[in-house]
Amino acid sequence: MPQLGLLPRRAWAALLSQLLRPPCASCTRAVRCHSQVAEAVLTSQLKAHQEKPNFIIRTPKGTRDLSPQQMVVREKILDLVVSCFKRHGAKGMDTPAFELKEMLTEKYGEDSGLMYDLKDQGGELLSLRYDLTVPFARYLAMNKVKKMKRYHVGKVWRRESPTIVQGRYREFCQCDFDIAGQFDPMIPDAECLKIMCEILNGLQLGDFLIKVNDRRIVDGMFAVCGVPESKFRTICSSIDKLDKMAWKDVRHEMVAKKGLAPEVADRIGDYVRCHGGESLVKQMFQDPRLSQNKQALEGLGDLKLLFEYLTLFGIAKKISFDLSLARGLDYYTGVIYEAVLLHTPTQAGEEPLSVGSVAAGGRYDGLVGMFDPKGHKVPCVGLSIGVERIFNIVEQRMKTFGEKVRTTETQVLVATPHKNFLHERLKLIAELWDAGIKAEMLYKNNPKLLTQLHYCESTGIPLVVIVGEQELKEGVVKIRSVASREEVAIKRENLVAEIQKRLSES
Amino acid sequence: MPQLGLLPRRAWAALLSQLLRPPCASCTRAVRCHSQVAEAVLTSQLKAHQEKPNFIIRTPKGTRDLSPQQMVVREKILDLVVSCFKRHGAKGMDTPAFELKEMLTEKYGEDSGLMYDLKDQGGELLSLRYDLTVPFARYLAMNKVKKMKRYHVGKVWRRESPTIVQGRYREFCQCDFDIAGQFDPMIPDAECLKIMCEILNGLQLGDFLIKVNDRRIVDGMFAVCGVPESKFRTICSSIDKLDKMAWKDVRHEMVAKKGLAPEVADRIGDYVRCHGGESLVKQMFQDPRLSQNKQALEGLGDLKLLFEYLTLFGIAKKISFDLSLARGLDYYTGVIYEAVLLHTPTQAGEEPLSVGSVAAGGRYDGLVGMFDPKGHKVPCVGLSIGVERIFNIVEQRMKTFGEKVRTTETQVLVATPHKNFLHERLKLIAELWDAGIKAEMLYKNNPKLLTQLHYCESTGIPLVVIVGEQELKEGVVKIRSVASREEVAIKRENLVAEIQKRLSES
Repeated sequence: MPQLGLLPRRAWAALLSQLLRPPCASCTRAVRCHSQVAEAVLTSQLKAHQEKPNFIIRTPKGTRDLSPQQMVVREKILDLVVSCFKRHGAKGMDTPAFELKEMLTEKYGEDSGLMYDLKDQGGELLSLRYDLTVPFARYLAMNKVKKMKRYHVGKVWRRESPTIVQGRYREFCQCDFDIAGQFDPMIPDAECLKIMCEILNGLQLGDFLIKVNDRRIVDGMFAVCGVPESKFRTICSSIDKLDKMAWKDVRHEMVAKKGLAPEVADRIGDYVRCHGGESLVKQMFQDPRLSQNKQALEGLGDLKLLFEYLTLFGIAKKISFDLSLARGLDYYTGVIYEAVLLHTPTQAGEEPLSVGSVAAGGRYDGLVGMFDPKGHKVPCVGLSIGVERIFNIVEQRMKTFGEKVRTTETQVLVATPHKNFLHERLKLIAELWDAGIKAEMLYKNNPKLLTQLHYCESTGIPLVVIVGEQELKEGVVKIRSVASREEVAIKRENLVAEIQKRLSES
Repeated sequence: MPQLGLLPRRAWAALLSQLLRPPCASCTRAVRCHSQVAEAVLTSQLKAHQEKPNFIIRTPKGTRDLSPQQMVVREKILDLVVSCFKRHGAKGMDTPAFELKEMLTEKYGEDSGLMYDLKDQGGELLSLRYDLTVPFARYLAMNKVKKMKRYHVGKVWRRESPTIVQGRYREFCQCDFDIAGQFDPMIPDAECLKIMCEILNGLQLGDFLIKVNDRRIVDGMFAVCGVPESKFRTICSSIDKLDKMAWKDVRHEMVAKKGLAPEVADRIGDYVRCHGGESLVKQMFQDPRLSQNKQALEGLGDLKLLFEYLTLFGIAKKISFDLSLARGLDYYTGVIYEAVLLHTPTQAGEEPLSVGSVAAGGRYDGLVGMFDPKGHKVPCVGLSIGVERIFNIVEQRMKTFGEKVRTTETQVLVATPHKNFLHERLKLIAELWDAGIKAEMLYKNNPKLLTQLHYCESTGIPLVVIVGEQELKEGVVKIRSVASREEVAIKRENLVAEIQKRLSES
């Protein structure tokens, strides 16, 4: 980093004008003003760098590029996920990357602060979407759609402290499937869990478990433990951290930071230790406190029905009723779920990868109504696949096994052993392209034959079409198999047919 | 809209605090302050709406959702474009939606003001990407990649005045193909034009023309006409508007707004009227003024070579050397091109659609060097397909022909004519899903058979699997063809095999 004293005069002037600007009206906290000053310094330093030019090229914090190798892996995962969504009859749709800020406010609870806002450039107040669920609810309300089964694959953005090693990014891709509409209880909910199982099985990520709970049971539990109703959502956010924090730390947050009575926290502690199968649902029906709460009983009734359907789907053993599952987002109203990998497939020399949940979702019956002028509700249930984390696991597995992927699909290289054959190569390759054959050539007037053959080997191209002086004279071209190194001469006019024949055979 | 006098007290207080805040330091123009006041009023009104609740649900200005019908069309277009890119050996890649603002500055010339900035939330200064080209150059420099042929499909954002009727949005999808690396002249450039032809032919958008020019010819023309070098880029921006504005308006902008001498403007006017085929290249070699300019001669030499290769590719007749083509972006250094549709395929009753250019690109040999600390250059050439405009044309054509698209791929509906068959349906459908068959059922305990059959007809599902009392007793299920209404009973255990047989036959 350059010393301030070393800044060129133009950069100093820019820095001074930054420091002397009046504070922004929206900035009330002192800490924010300090960060503005720090940023002015940084901006000037970067300008100085740029002038040298010696600045650091990078992507923004918490984001990354995907290389061609990574793209191949990503697309394989997305293909599997999307084909599962289509197998269940979902339609595709898309929404803009940003929404009017007011559309997103009061939807995410304590997570709202993590939203990326756009700068006010003299127009609307906009924010990048935080998930695909709220835009979906906005779409339903805006178009007065009462019934829809859709999937949506897209990026979302959250200003979280990025701990990239765990597969958490500030920009990440979500794959969502949702069922909107008034239906009989738990049938769509059971399908969502079936879909999660199909995808996690299909991706072969090893053993997994889906934790299930119900927001009404969570709220009922809070009520019977003595949590004041005004604290339900904030205590819910604390409970949501149990997958990353120990109980004693969560308890401390609830008591010391959120003002919960210690004995209330301990009562909650007794419940959140409970997890098990269908039998735990029955057991909770008998719980002396919980069974007195109407909301909790409704939730338990639905979970009972859900387990019935999951058994018919053959996936009940993958599901665990877990009273510690709370889910952070405000909009859930009924059943909630989260899939966790039980262990990553660790190989010799492979670092175990902590990934947390790889899929999650739940029922949100009130969200569409928040957008509707008359508050008309459209009940919804859905799930989201955390492909970023899955991607990290698959990538690491491939590294361990030394698996290589082809990043192109090229079938034929058009080559020549002689000089001055550019024109012939251009004519040949255009013919192949026009016939739909995937073909490349080296962008040199006179490439060496060895260079051309090496290119095939390093990029995995299976066939070479060779044209030289002899071939041109005889009206033929040679087709060479890269793997066997065999070459055959064929008539020039049969080239496309011959290539197509060979490609269909392989 | 509510009257201001009707605003509730809380909204009034919010409005006042907005109006009383000090002006932002970055806001220097009075018009901007007015818009801030207007926006404060709007925000308060919206708050008032929300409280009623009676606010307007919409997407941000210049953006839109894609409905399932639109997504099907969009995906067909993207599939065709991407398969062409892959046919030419390109690898896929991705970059974040936003970049550090400093990465994007000084790349776009006069268009820079159209960039979306993110709000400074106490971190980095970020902007949404404006195209896919600059992030690609940043990627190459950052990873020290000297050679790469890649495609990239992704959204970009520009704060243009949206005239949606022309297919211009503030959020839109671009499909880019680029070849980076030091190669022999015009070979990659010719391939880019070949790709544009293949895609525009493949999409069957009717007749088209690709205008070609070279930045060195543009600059040479400016020099010999007497434009001062400091005005090259800004005059270039004016020339770029010739596809939307008449010559006399562009001339007025250059003379009145940009201070160009009238006789200089008129000399430019003589050149920009010229367009034609390969013969115009030869003619310009003889031009008494242009032939005196070294840069222009280099450009003309390359165009001559380009036309030679385009003839070998069989596409020379689609290409027009057009001296009015300038391209707005700063980063082009050599050949530039832009594809325009000559007419949209107008049918009886169809409004003709003005679409402007549908694909464009050029050579940018200096962009990667702007990112490299040592200024190392990586020559690049590429193209971008404007799928948004193409999408509008295809969509309008489908409306005219009354073409309908299926928005789901469901092959089988699992149905029942009797009550209390939910459990059987759930078991059956899970079997189908597990076998990879695309299946749906209605989410009702006891749906009517007619409702179930109607659902198939309205959504295009070809087969129905029916289970009822009789079938259960006999250990069979019925398969019904929706089109022929024929039903056959098959053994329950043969269901999956029988369905797969029927689907492979159809």
